[in-house]
Order: sequence, then structure tokens, then C-alpha cells
Amino acid sequence: MKRIRVGILGATGAVGQRFIALLTDHPWFEITALAASERSAGLPYREACTWRLTADCPPAVAEMIVQPCQPGLDCEIVFSALPGEMAREVEEEMAAAGYGVLSNASAHRMDPDVPLLIPEVNPDHLRLVPIQQRRRGWGKGFIVTDPNCSTVGLTLALKPLHDAFGVRRVIVTTMQALSGAGYPGVPSLDSLDNVIPYIRGEEEKMIQEPRKLLGTLAADGESVLPAEIAISPACNRVSTRDGHMETVSVELVHKPSIAEVIEAFRHFESLPYKLGCPSAVEPTLIVREEPDRPQTVRDRDAGRGMAVTIGRVRPCEVFDIKFVLLSHNTIRGAAGGAILNAELMVAQGMIG
Amino acid sequence: MKRIRVGILGATGAVGQRFIALLTDHPWFEITALAASERSAGLPYREACTWRLTADCPPAVAEMIVQPCQPGLDCEIVFSALPGEMAREVEEEMAAAGYGVLSNASAHRMDPDVPLLIPEVNPDHLRLVPIQQRRRGWGKGFIVTDPNCSTVGLTLALKPLHDAFGVRRVIVTTMQALSGAGYPGVPSLDSLDNVIPYIRGEEEKMIQEPRKLLGTLAADGESVLPAEIAISPACNRVSTRDGHMETVSVELVHKPSIAEVIEAFRHFESLPYKLGCPSAVEPTLIVREEPDRPQTVRDRDAGRGMAVTIGRVRPCEVFDIKFVLLSHNTIRGAAGGAILNAELMVAQGMIG
Amino acid sequence: MKRIRVGILGATGAVGQRFIALLTDHPWFEITALAASERSAGLPYREACTWRLTADCPPAVAEMIVQPCQPGLDCEIVFSALPGEMAREVEEEMAAAGYGVLSNASAHRMDPDVPLLIPEVNPDHLRLVPIQQRRRGWGKGFIVTDPNCSTVGLTLALKPLHDAFGVRRVIVTTMQALSGAGYPGVPSLDSLDNVIPYIRGEEEKMIQEPRKLLGTLAADGESVLPAEIAISPACNRVSTRDGHMETVSVELVHKPSIAEVIEAFRHFESLPYKLGCPSAVEPTLIVREEPDRPQTVRDRDAGRGMAVTIGRVRPCEVFDIKFVLLSHNTIRGAAGGAILNAELMVAQGMIG
Amino acid sequence: MKRIRVGILGATGAVGQRFIALLTDHPWFEITALAASERSAGLPYREACTWRLTADCPPAVAEMIVQPCQPGLDCEIVFSALPGEMAREVEEEMAAAGYGVLSNASAHRMDPDVPLLIPEVNPDHLRLVPIQQRRRGWGKGFIVTDPNCSTVGLTLALKPLHDAFGVRRVIVTTMQALSGAGYPGVPSLDSLDNVIPYIRGEEEKMIQEPRKLLGTLAADGESVLPAEIAISPACNRVSTRDGHMETVSVELVHKPSIAEVIEAFRHFESLPYKLGCPSAVEPTLIVREEPDRPQTVRDRDAGRGMAVTIGRVRPCEVFDIKFVLLSHNTIRGAAGGAILNAELMVAQGMIG
Repeated sequence: MKRIRVGILGATGAVGQRFIALLTDHPWFEITALAASERSAGLPYREACTWRLTADCPPAVAEMIVQPCQPGLDCEIVFSALPGEMAREVEEEMAAAGYGVLSNASAHRMDPDVPLLIPEVNPDHLRLVPIQQRRRGWGKGFIVTDPNCSTVGLTLALKPLHDAFGVRRVIVTTMQALSGAGYPGVPSLDSLDNVIPYIRGEEEKMIQEPRKLLGTLAADGESVLPAEIAISPACNRVSTRDGHMETVSVELVHKPSIAEVIEAFRHFESLPYKLGCPSAVEPTLIVREEPDRPQTVRDRDAGRGMAVTIGRVRPCEVFDIKFVLLSHNTIRGAAGGAILNAELMVAQGMIG
Repeated sequence: MKRIRVGILGATGAVGQRFIALLTDHPWFEITALAASERSAGLPYREACTWRLTADCPPAVAEMIVQPCQPGLDCEIVFSALPGEMAREVEEEMAAAGYGVLSNASAHRMDPDVPLLIPEVNPDHLRLVPIQQRRRGWGKGFIVTDPNCSTVGLTLALKPLHDAFGVRRVIVTTMQALSGAGYPGVPSLDSLDNVIPYIRGEEEKMIQEPRKLLGTLAADGESVLPAEIAISPACNRVSTRDGHMETVSVELVHKPSIAEVIEAFRHFESLPYKLGCPSAVEPTLIVREEPDRPQTVRDRDAGRGMAVTIGRVRPCEVFDIKFVLLSHNTIRGAAGGAILNAELMVAQGMIG
Repeated sequence: MKRIRVGILGATGAVGQRFIALLTDHPWFEITALAASERSAGLPYREACTWRLTADCPPAVAEMIVQPCQPGLDCEIVFSALPGEMAREVEEEMAAAGYGVLSNASAHRMDPDVPLLIPEVNPDHLRLVPIQQRRRGWGKGFIVTDPNCSTVGLTLALKPLHDAFGVRRVIVTTMQALSGAGYPGVPSLDSLDNVIPYIRGEEEKMIQEPRKLLGTLAADGESVLPAEIAISPACNRVSTRDGHMETVSVELVHKPSIAEVIEAFRHFESLPYKLGCPSAVEPTLIVREEPDRPQTVRDRDAGRGMAVTIGRVRPCEVFDIKFVLLSHNTIRGAAGGAILNAELMVAQGMIG
Repeated sequence: MKRIRVGILGATGAVGQRFIALLTDHPWFEITALAASERSAGLPYREACTWRLTADCPPAVAEMIVQPCQPGLDCEIVFSALPGEMAREVEEEMAAAGYGVLSNASAHRMDPDVPLLIPEVNPDHLRLVPIQQRRRGWGKGFIVTDPNCSTVGLTLALKPLHDAFGVRRVIVTTMQALSGAGYPGVPSLDSLDNVIPYIRGEEEKMIQEPRKLLGTLAADGESVLPAEIAISPACNRVSTRDGHMETVSVELVHKPSIAEVIEAFRHFESLPYKLGCPSAVEPTLIVREEPDRPQTVRDRDAGRGMAVTIGRVRPCEVFDIKFVLLSHNTIRGAAGGAILNAELMVAQGMIG
């Protein structure tokens, strides 16, 4: 099978590097274009970028010439790791020029005709793509987004509960890793021996995004009716490298036993896994029974960083159930999530 | 004024050392006895103990001979930093022998006739002391306890809310410091780059203790009717040295504005401060308005470790209000709390 | 090819777990016996052990029954991760019973007839094995040891310098990872925001072991004449999980240019790699040219944890050259080193 | 006594804040001017600065209006916390305008007519001040500098050794705190679980500065003849907040016993302490005998951050002696050092 040519927008940043690492040796995709800011354009990637991941940058990629973030890239689809302010305009320009844009940026997530997608949660929302193309007059170009790194783990855990028991209210506290702030990100004097109980813009995303992700397509198929779930988040930065831990209390419509809740988590099915998407894992939700798991350093890489680990499922003294979850913020919560979105679209014949 | 002679039970441990540091140069108290396990008894303190606080052990204390934890200590009251399993029996034995026991242990906290005391919250619960002495036939001996380190900050913050608006339901997530586990406590391989979402026995205490602390004396004055507040805690260990951070969502009976909530925090009055207790501070509750405060490393020592710092007071999407609080776990949450309890009893003529 | 059956002594500890992880799916070895203290014997491994590595314990291993550390194990060779005090006796007993013992313990390292082995450095020292067997009357049993975790990186770096230019004096400061102290090891209150400038017994090993490793077999082949190198170490514990960083100043007999030193590092040849040993890597010594590399978190896994990364090769203002090196203390410096020793012996027909 | 009016150049940065904290309630000095970059000039200090120290900014200072870094400040002397590139020009301009400049910047440290001063080490170097004033035509203005944060602890420890035994060669490895890089400084992703074996420009300073500090005034009194000591440093950044730890091996001309070395450290006399300088402490050098001290978190505040703690004094296998030392980098190694310099000049009648 011939691999699909892909480009990366914002290739020199932290998420851009993670895209490169995950796409190297990918069975379906081949990196054929790297794009970044004007400052980097024209340089070989190895000069444009200070590589920060543990494994070295693949030599073939290191020699590629960085291009500007605009149409003209030699590829079919682009993964966007652009910062918020740039993403809105550039992504639309690329889509208008016929590129499929798989975006990790927040700019378009809440646009009514743009799918905010987790393949295991709401694959049917991809039906917005033709609507979007028609409305915006985009030919074969499109924009599909993945959720914020703190949203994705929560939403994956809520999905089987919502389907089986109906989720009504959620109170969630996050303990988020330093890599979520990018590089240079959080100064070490702010992280050592410290908790910062605030991450700008994060709580707003956690309130809105799960409602769209768990929502249903409107009757006319042209937008998503958000799920009627009230979510109250409190977001904190703690001193961990990768992996967002979240404590979650949930009020449900129907009142299951704890065993039934665990059952629901364990039987959660993954459409992308069934379709053979290379980045999908099984199980998507790992339920641990030890009282002190998941732990950030021990469980964040579960399922190659694409699984969500759930622990301490127990009754809540105020709502119905509570538990703790952990997901990898730069894999499942960023680059890996966008790649899985692209894989689902390939598997469903929408790309390639 | 002649200082009151005090002893310390469990003097060699982490909390015992903190008692020594806080009692050195105390205007009302004088350390005249140190007691610890059989293994330490008979040794000079400096040999019995590996001192772990930053400031050096006071030389006079270092030369004192450690005694066994039993009656015969040359003092009027004892501060107890005994581990749970030993505390029940030894504290009762000391009280029966006529010592006032100010305990930091959990053993007797929920006994109906034992005050669980925060001087700014429930000073009237000291009326249980004569009941206790009568029932148990203890003469002038008694046991008064302070709450768990994760409870005290939460309860101090809830108190003015409960008085003004009525607290109905609380969901709280803690991010607790390593020193809460004592020494050696948490292995470094479990703390570096990690969050552990579990602390044994902690959530049980957070469910029960605030209800007793915020409760009212029964009509017959012989026990406490717990406040009817449902509390759902999720306790986590993070990589900080001192200072417990807590995110709190609260449902109230009456519905105040955010300004009224802040007002209630700021007008919270401290009886022990009015009475001139040396460890009391004003304000007890510090409300910060910066979006990213309190922070563990910057705010834990506020009010010499006896204040509680509150931040991010805002509406809750699910309940009525939410906020974050920070309190020093080994000062306000342990040794300092027990000393303040003793100071209140002195100020009210119950000791000395 | 039929795999060689191996056992692990001290299988439940930190190094024992690392042995299991590295031996799982090993092409030449198959774990057929696990042994640990009396307390664990008789239990399934999953019950006897609190597994602490990131990747889960292999299910087949988890179900194996732990046996006592004594002859009777169903295997040909044993890897020993026994603590110092037990290792001396048990390893001798096993060797006497005909087992090949590949030890990571320090007990026998300096015995005149026991090879202290790094396959890339002194493979000829294996000629001590028949001497040892003859002297001790051990039949086919033997003991071969690997060096201390802080020694191995230093010695690998010194080897090509000693061969090419003659090493005379070395001053070395280590910044060692927490995992070197095992589990529970260093308390978190001693590691957070701290450096401890002392590791018991470590400096003594760094003074002696490289001299034996770089020494030559005596004319009669019955012992090793230590290299005449004076080494002054200063060992420190810093707050990193894995990876020992070392700054090294070296006085040489001959005076090479910096380019010649780098050349010597880069041309260092690995006999075990040439012989196809599965754990050997090429290059063994990685020389980085960036001014700020190696870094612990970025480079410790280089060469699957079996390479040593060297950086900042430059003139020394006092001696001739100085540089910094990093090696993985629980892979190259412990379990991986002992496995590579065994692989070399297989490749040379001394095992299997 | 009327207090001397002082200004702070670079008042909004990390060292500037430390100057403010140490000068608040200073018995001899009174802050009357704050200066910073054009961007901050005209604003109240509380708006110009993000205060990062634990104790809050003194309210009186918070309301002062920040001025530009140029003559016209209402004060007699200025403490300079300017960054390297700005310091050279501005400090000269201020001195030319008649201000005494006590600088923490590196710009003028190696100028032949500028004292590089540690009051306990080389107070006689202040005799360069009139030379400097005459040569540069500066009236009563002058520049006096303090050494780099990694130099000061080393030089204080070497001084009594050099006086008593003659220091010939030194090999030193530093483990330096994050605050040495200022704010935002080191990104948390570069510090967590990491050692960076490189600090730009640091080793050059450690090679040169101690030679000037331990040097002697030339016969004509117009410059300093550097001490003939060879120093080889290796500088590392580790994950600690404050406090530079250094391992030191020293070759001496005369060969003392370890007891004599410790004696020399303990009898080290402090001229500024004798003269009653408020920031001077006694002893300046604290020798600890426990094998595992000093430790960064436990000893950095010794002597209010102005003492140097020395431990593990022992024979060196290569040179004569070795030891470890710890000094507080932002107090003794920056603001506190410059203030002590000013105090010495006051005590000697050169200021005020």
C-alpha cells in the first residue's frame, strides 16, 4: 500500500516534534513536508529546531527543508500544531487550498461545522465534514480537530457512563504535567516544590468540549447538539513531565453499582481498533484495581500513551461515583489524538 | 509570668521535632520533658533523634534525657505526636494520671466526649472536657485533639460559609505534601515526576472530622451533633515538601454573590487572636486575588504557617462556589494546631 | 537454538525486577527459576513482589513460584541481585553446586580469582574462571561479577584513553540517580530540592574497581595486577530517577590533542558487539558535541541504556583533559551489565 | 545614626528583589530609589515587578515609583543587579556622576583598578578605589564588585588554606541551584529529573576570579597580582531552588593533617564581623562532621545565608585534601555579598 503524504504545520515546536516521532515509520503515513514560522523557513529542520524528545530526530527528517505555513506543501493532509493565534487563519487557508487539516489547535474546535473528534467517542461527527466543505466552498479540503489535552481523558471515561447510565453533573480536578505548557513553558522556579492552581483558558475548554464531544448530530445533520452535562473543572499544574491525572465525581441519571460502572469501562469498544487503525489500542480504558493506581510515572505510557488508565472507582459521598484517571497529554492528548483522527478518516475512505 | 511546664510524647519523630521547634522560646510554655519509645528512653535527645528540621535543634533540648511514654514526666500537660496505634492507650493513661493531653493523633478524635478542636471554629466544644473528666473519672487530666492535616484548612474555610450561608455539600480534591507522610515516609522513587492518587485513611477523616468540628453541642452538653454536610474527598500525594493544596466546590443553602463569599472569608474572626494566644494570627483566612495564587512554595508559610490562604473564589458550574486553599500541614495541620489548642485552654483558664 | 535456562537470585528487589524485564524475550536466555528470601519463597511471584517498573511484569513470570536462594533451582546459570550481606555465602554455595553465577553484588568483586568484568574492557579476565574453579574445587560452577554502577561508565571511558595515552590520575565527581539506592531507598524528603554529598561505600568502590578492571593478568594468569591509576572520587546523590552523571579530569602519560581524545572514544571497539551479543551496542561510547549534553533525562537511555554518553571533551586547567559522562545505572550499571557478561561467556563457549 | 540612602539598579529582577528583601529594615541603609529598564520607569514598583520571593514585598517599597537607570537618583550609593550587557555602561555613568556603585554584575570584575571584593578575604583591595577614582576622574563615585555566585563559596574556603598552607591546584565540580539562572531562567522540562552539565560563562569566572580575590596588591598599589593557583571547574545545574554545592580537591604547598585543615577553617576570622557589619556572621565557615552534610535544603540558610558550610574534609587520593562546600547563591553569592561590601566600606569610612 502506498503511504499517504503528510505535512506538519508548526513542526519545530513541542507538539510538532511529537508528530514527527509518532509519524516516523508509520504504516499509513509518510512525512513529506515540514512547515513552520517565517524565521525557520528555508533552513534544514535540524537547524531550525532544537530537538527535545528523548529519542533522536530521524536523520531523514533532520535534513528536510522547512517551508512556510501556506499552500504549496507537497502532501495531501497536514497535521497542525500551530499556536492558537496563528491556527485560525492558516488552517482555513490550507483547507481552502484542498488540504485535509487534522488540527491540534483550539481555534476551530467549537465551530459548528467542524468535528471535534475522538474516534472512540463520536466517529459519526465526521458527517460534518461534507457540510463544512459545502458551506465553506472548500472542495476536498477540510478541518477536523482533536480536543484539549485535559478534555480527552475525561471524555473517554465519561462516554461509556453516559451511554449506559446518563451523565448529569461532573466535578473534576486536574493535576496536569509540565509538558502541557510547551517549551520553555513553566519556569523551573515555578514548578519545583510547587503546585500552581491555575492554567489559563483550560477550565473553559473542559466545560465546553466534552459537551460537544458527547453531543448528538442535529436532525438536519448540520451541527452538534451538545450533551446536557454540567461540568465544573479545577485545573492545576504539578511537577510531572507528562501525564494528566484527574479526580472525577459524577452524578448519573440511572444508579448503577460500582461493579456495573467498572463493567461499562471494561466493555468500552473502540471503533478505530476494530477498523485496524495503527494508533488505536485495546483496551482504550484500562481499569486498575490496586488502591494507589494509576500513578503518573508508572501508567502514563500505558497503551503506548493512547490508553486512559482509570483507578479507585468507588461511590461518591455527594454524587454517585468517583474515580481517578490518567492520560498522556502529548500523545493521546495532542499529536497521537490527531493522528488517530486521520487514521479513522483513512479507514472510512475520507482520506487517501 | 511563670511558664507552664510541658512534655512531648513521641518527641523524636517528625511532628515531635516540629513541636520542639515551635515551643522553643514560647512565651507561655517551657519544655521540661521529652518522651519516646522504649528504644530511645534513657538517651540524650541528640542521640535518640535524627534531627531533620532546617534550623538546628536547640542545645538545651538536645541534652535532655528522653523518658518513656508513661506517667512520671515532670510537666503539667503533654503534646502527643504518638503514632495511631500507640496513642489510644498511652494518652488515656496520661490523662488518668492527671496530665492534660493535647493530641495530634487520630485515636480519640471521634470519641463522643473528646473535643476535636480548632480554636477559631469550635471553642465551645471545650465544654466536653468536664464531661469527659467526670465520665472517665480523670480528675484534672483530659484529652483534647486537633484534626487531621487535610481537614483543618478545609474546615477553617467552610466555617464562615456555614455560619453565613449554610454548607450543604462539598467536593474536595487535595494535593498533599510529602511531609504529611512523616519520615522516611514516601520513597523518592514514588514522588519524583509522580502523583499518587491515594493516601490511606485520609479520605475517611475528611468525611467525618469537619462534620464534628462544625457540629453543635447537644442540648445536654455531653456530645456533639455533627453538622449535616456531605463531603466527598479525593486525596492525592504530590511532590511538594510542605503545604496541602485543596480545590473545593461547595453547595450552599443560601445563595450569596462571590463578593459576599469573599467578605465572609475576610471578616472571619479569630477568638484565640482576640484572647492574645501567641500562635494565633490575623487574618486567619487570607484571600488572594491574583488568578494563580495561592501557590504551595510561595504561600505555605503565610501567617507563620498558621493562616489558610484562599484563592480563585469563583462560581461553580455545578454547585454554588468553588475556590482553592492552602494550609501548612505540619504547622497549622499538626504541631501548631495542638499548641494553639493549648493556648486557648490557658487563655480560658482551663490550663495553668 | 535452544535457550539457556537462567535463574534470578533476589528476584523481588529493584535489580531483580530489572533482570526480569531485560531477560523477557531474550534470544539466548529463558527465565526458569526465581529465588528470593525465605519470606517470599513458596509464593507466586506476583504476590511476593511489588512490581515497580513501568512496563507490567510479564504474565508468565508473575505466575512462577518463588524458591529459596539455594541449590535446587532448575537452571544452568543464575543472575544474582542479592544484597551485599547475603551475596557472599549464597553465591559461593550456588557456584559450588555447579551453577554459573553472574553477580551484580559487590561481595566477590575484589576476590583475586574472581573476574570483575566489563566485556568491552577486559574480556581476557575471564581466564580467571578455570583458575577459580580449580582453586575452589567447583567443577563447572563459577562466579563472575560486574562493577559498581558508578564505576562502569568511568571505566568504559577511561579504557580507550588508557590504551592510547596512559591514564595516571583521575579526579571524578558523580551526580547519581535515586534508583541506585534501591527501593524504598532515599526518602523523598531527602531528595526534593536537595543534593546529598555522600553515598556510603561508593567512593571506596570507585577507587579500587577501575584499577582491577583496567589491570592486566599476572604472568601466571592467576590474578590481576591492578593498573597504576590514582582515582579520587566525590559521590553525590541528586534528584534524578535513573542515570549517573560524572565530571572527570584526567592526567595522561602522553599528551594528545582534544581531537585525538575524541577519536579514541569514537574508535573504541566492542568485542561483545562483534561477537553478536544481543545486549551489546555500537557505539559503546557516544561522543556528543553540543555544549550542554549529555543530560540525564535525555541521554540515559542511549543505546538501550547500554551506551555511555560523553560530552564536553576539553582541556583541563589542572590535568590534561576533562569531560562529562552519563551511564544508565540500573541497566549498564547493574542488570544489563551482568547479562552482557553472561552473553560474552556464551559467545566464547564458556556457558551453554 | 542617620541611615545612608541607597538605590537599586535593576530593581525588578530576581537579584533586585533580593536586594529589597535584605535592605528592608537594614540598620545602616535605607532604600530611597528604585531603577529599572525604560519599560518599567514611571510605574509604581508593584506594577513594574512580578514579586517572586516568599515574603511579600514591603508595602512602602511597593508604592515607590521606578526610575530609569541613570544619574538623578536620590541616593548616595547604588546596588547594581543589572544584566551583564547593560551593566558596563550604566555603572560607569553612575560612578562618573558621583555615586558609589556596589555591583553584582560581572562587567567590571576583572578591570585592573576595580576591587573584586569579599570582605573576609581581601578587604585591602579596597585601596584600589582611590586609584580608580583618580585614573577615571570620578570624584567620589566608584565601582566595587562582588564575585560570581559559584566563586564566592570556593574562595572563602580556599582563603584560610592559602594563608596557612599555600594552595597550588584546585579541581572543583559545582552542583548549582536553579535560582542562579534568574527568572524565568531554566525551563522546568530541563530541570525535572535532570542534570545539565553546562552553565554558560560560569567556568571562565571560576578560573579567573579566585586568583584575583586571593591575589596581592602590586607594589605600586595600582593593581592586583593574581595568586598563582590553577583551578579547573566543571559546572552543573541541578534541580534545587537555592544553594550551590561544590566538591573540591586541593593540592597544597605544605602538607597539613586533616585536623590542621579543619582548624584552619574554624579559626578563619571575619574582619567585617569584628567591625560590626550587620550582614557579617560568625563563624563564616561552618565545618560539619556528619558524613552526609552539608545538604542543600538543610544548610543553605546557615548564618542567614551568609555562611559557607563545609563538610567531608578528608584526604584526597590524588591531591592533598578534598571536601564539599555549600553557599547560598542569591544571598552570599549575590545581593548579600554586595551589601556586605557596602557595609565594610561604611565601617571603614569610605561611604557615608
